[in-house]
Amino acid sequence: MHIDLNCDMGESFGVYGLGRDEEIIDSVSSISIACGFHAGDPHVMARTVRLARERGVAVGAHPGLPDLMGFGRRDMACSPEEVADFLTYQIGALQAFCVAEGVALCHVKPHGALYNRAAQDERLVRAMAGAIARIDRNLLLVGLAGRDNRRMAGIAAEEGIAMVFEAFPDRAYTPECALVSRRQPGAVIHDPDIAALRALRMVMDKTVEAIDGTVVPLSARTFCIHGDNSHGVALAAAIRQRMEAAGIKVRPMRPI
Amino acid sequence: MHIDLNCDMGESFGVYGLGRDEEIIDSVSSISIACGFHAGDPHVMARTVRLARERGVAVGAHPGLPDLMGFGRRDMACSPEEVADFLTYQIGALQAFCVAEGVALCHVKPHGALYNRAAQDERLVRAMAGAIARIDRNLLLVGLAGRDNRRMAGIAAEEGIAMVFEAFPDRAYTPECALVSRRQPGAVIHDPDIAALRALRMVMDKTVEAIDGTVVPLSARTFCIHGDNSHGVALAAAIRQRMEAAGIKVRPMRPI
Amino acid sequence: MHIDLNCDMGESFGVYGLGRDEEIIDSVSSISIACGFHAGDPHVMARTVRLARERGVAVGAHPGLPDLMGFGRRDMACSPEEVADFLTYQIGALQAFCVAEGVALCHVKPHGALYNRAAQDERLVRAMAGAIARIDRNLLLVGLAGRDNRRMAGIAAEEGIAMVFEAFPDRAYTPECALVSRRQPGAVIHDPDIAALRALRMVMDKTVEAIDGTVVPLSARTFCIHGDNSHGVALAAAIRQRMEAAGIKVRPMRPI
Amino acid sequence: MHIDLNCDMGESFGVYGLGRDEEIIDSVSSISIACGFHAGDPHVMARTVRLARERGVAVGAHPGLPDLMGFGRRDMACSPEEVADFLTYQIGALQAFCVAEGVALCHVKPHGALYNRAAQDERLVRAMAGAIARIDRNLLLVGLAGRDNRRMAGIAAEEGIAMVFEAFPDRAYTPECALVSRRQPGAVIHDPDIAALRALRMVMDKTVEAIDGTVVPLSARTFCIHGDNSHGVALAAAIRQRMEAAGIKVRPMRPI
Repeated sequence: MHIDLNCDMGESFGVYGLGRDEEIIDSVSSISIACGFHAGDPHVMARTVRLARERGVAVGAHPGLPDLMGFGRRDMACSPEEVADFLTYQIGALQAFCVAEGVALCHVKPHGALYNRAAQDERLVRAMAGAIARIDRNLLLVGLAGRDNRRMAGIAAEEGIAMVFEAFPDRAYTPECALVSRRQPGAVIHDPDIAALRALRMVMDKTVEAIDGTVVPLSARTFCIHGDNSHGVALAAAIRQRMEAAGIKVRPMRPI
Repeated sequence: MHIDLNCDMGESFGVYGLGRDEEIIDSVSSISIACGFHAGDPHVMARTVRLARERGVAVGAHPGLPDLMGFGRRDMACSPEEVADFLTYQIGALQAFCVAEGVALCHVKPHGALYNRAAQDERLVRAMAGAIARIDRNLLLVGLAGRDNRRMAGIAAEEGIAMVFEAFPDRAYTPECALVSRRQPGAVIHDPDIAALRALRMVMDKTVEAIDGTVVPLSARTFCIHGDNSHGVALAAAIRQRMEAAGIKVRPMRPI
Repeated sequence: MHIDLNCDMGESFGVYGLGRDEEIIDSVSSISIACGFHAGDPHVMARTVRLARERGVAVGAHPGLPDLMGFGRRDMACSPEEVADFLTYQIGALQAFCVAEGVALCHVKPHGALYNRAAQDERLVRAMAGAIARIDRNLLLVGLAGRDNRRMAGIAAEEGIAMVFEAFPDRAYTPECALVSRRQPGAVIHDPDIAALRALRMVMDKTVEAIDGTVVPLSARTFCIHGDNSHGVALAAAIRQRMEAAGIKVRPMRPI
Repeated sequence: MHIDLNCDMGESFGVYGLGRDEEIIDSVSSISIACGFHAGDPHVMARTVRLARERGVAVGAHPGLPDLMGFGRRDMACSPEEVADFLTYQIGALQAFCVAEGVALCHVKPHGALYNRAAQDERLVRAMAGAIARIDRNLLLVGLAGRDNRRMAGIAAEEGIAMVFEAFPDRAYTPECALVSRRQPGAVIHDPDIAALRALRMVMDKTVEAIDGTVVPLSARTFCIHGDNSHGVALAAAIRQRMEAAGIKVRPMRPI
């Protein structure tokens, strides 16, 4: 058995630091690097790809909406075609840094509002997968693990792209297998040990206990760890340790 | 005998149109596409690469400084390392659109203040060539034809990159083979026929008549045509016609 | 009887020109100046305020969403509080140029997606009016003339701001007094004379003939003229002429 | 005797936090607020002006170059006229937040590359002072205390603006009364007590001991404290305490 642990990285911008990239990277097997639209800049990207190479983790692109002030979290009424071009641009920009460092680009994980919309919007998934396929058919598209996964994966496959679904061990789930909104109490699990146990169960039983106690099927090939505070560092370490103690191999979504 | 005619393209942004790309493209053999920093946006880039494919011209990247308001013309005190990262980012972004359209990327021509600084700043040329080499050693770096060409080409070659030098048939030259500043009278040659004759002489004799009448040696493998007005369209057509009438083949800097 | 004719201006950015400001300004009594978020830059603003002073037209702010690439037309999921801060920022920026030129700021007309949302979203109107009131209670808030005007004006009044409603003589209306979407055939009236006659009827009868022939009540104190092409120039001239021929005074929303 | 202590604030942007504004503000009498070009955004500006009102400190504008990625530190070849328009725009934007909160705007302190250039470039000082004067002649222009102060103040006075000069108690000075470059060893004084003693001497004797031991005349009406780390908080507290212990009143550049 195996699982990928991924973390968003390279979200600093200019003088603005964000995230504990250098600490958390040792606990994960993949990182998703911001590409300059919602976060990140060319220097941060160069540095982060270099860091990935040194630490031997897999690299993905983390493209977002062109809204640095809103960190790509505010949805924008962009057409699927516009989003496709945003992805092409950002993936290409990151790829050049990867080529420069001799690192393979493995996956594409849309950020923020794009990620959320992709969980529900078929036309958007098709546009994204199409844009990615035209660049490199080996790239994996990462989406939120949930009920619609088969349908979304089918759409991406029609465009020639395989999808990988991710779960959040430190987030509460609804009985419908959606994330509980952060605005609701109990949405975030702060105890690293509990989060690690939930991660274990996700891998072993392919289930998650929803916020109302229901046991919900959930199949994920990667877990998302947030690395923007010291808590994230502890969480990542706890999950990794728990995985390895249970004999679950932590490794990238696909071999690098 | 042969020569390349190149034109900067894809300089529109959002609702803002700039340049007569669709008209002038039929007179040139190469285009340099803005990459979103000083001009251009992802949709304009997609559209322009598609246009290049349809019309069969060679494609280059036209990276600039991150200053849309100043169109990349205002110099910024960026270090060579910063500029190198700016180039990597922009070249990569354009390359993804090229891959998506099945078009080869052939050259890199820095824009505006970067172009001007590169004509004099060895450290900058080294940084640029190094950045390009780490992406693709087949890419050509375009610089201003002039007295320092051998030295600059030597620096680029040390990094693994070949340089191509360009001349401006519609611009006056100083006896030192530099461009006469646009602020001086007579800096721009408006008559397409005179410009075409100058172009012819540049190819046949490898000389240019400077503003003071001196005949100055000038060796260029590509001519830059500006396409932002109807005059540029006429100029390009006149130069192309004159070349072909003289049996000079108009073709890209390297075969595509 | 009197009416205001207004036109959006100052939408150029850097080297990018947009609009026939210098021509159309002579036909209107008010202009709404872009403030640097969706269009415009500090130099364009300075120039446009100066033009308004020279030609004696009233000046308003035309604030938009921070999306230059999308020209402020793509809606963004910003909270009313965020929009309020965007308005404060942009109105203030324009006001400084007005103060510098000794010109009064008269109105605020939200642009694009903000304008459209304001026609339906009470919370947004309240936030906008509140932001404007905290700067200057004499500023008028311009909104789309339509069925909900009384309600929206009431909300703005609660915040201390008077609203002015505008109509579009060259746009088709639904029987519900909404604008027919530009994507539908017949949405735009291209004949300047017909548009001028519609404008006349709007002033004289306070009605508009909807696309289905129904006569719909419509009360507007200002007409919006678009000035981004030669057609807009002719349209503005035709409307102004028709107004003056009918003895209707063309003058700003409030005396300057 | 009295002195002003000022600190740059409101330099956060979107999700990116920068500076210990809430802690350091209690030690200073003035703050200079970033205006959205090199740092700051509309929400940060609103929040920071509100903080200033609550804590009773004087507010100034801290306008910079339009280079968020470079934090306004990279010089850009903008003309004095362009810079004047940048200042007008940013001062106006901040002023609107001040009006909204009922807070007076007291001074303008250019940031980064603009600040550095203003210490040497007469044309720039004239353009800045002119832009400020056209907005409000009561605004003070803050510049670096040094040898050219009389000349620069004279130029600003010709435009109708008074200048105030600031010194850096925690920075080493050359015998020519310039700041020692941060790249040189000893450029920054890290011990809060030593910095506080230097501040005291600057007020009492109007001198500073240069890095070579020379005693140099230095006349400043405000001291700049940097607040971007915990050290800045301690430094500000130490200087304030030392001032008050010596009977020197800490108060804004001009009464608010």
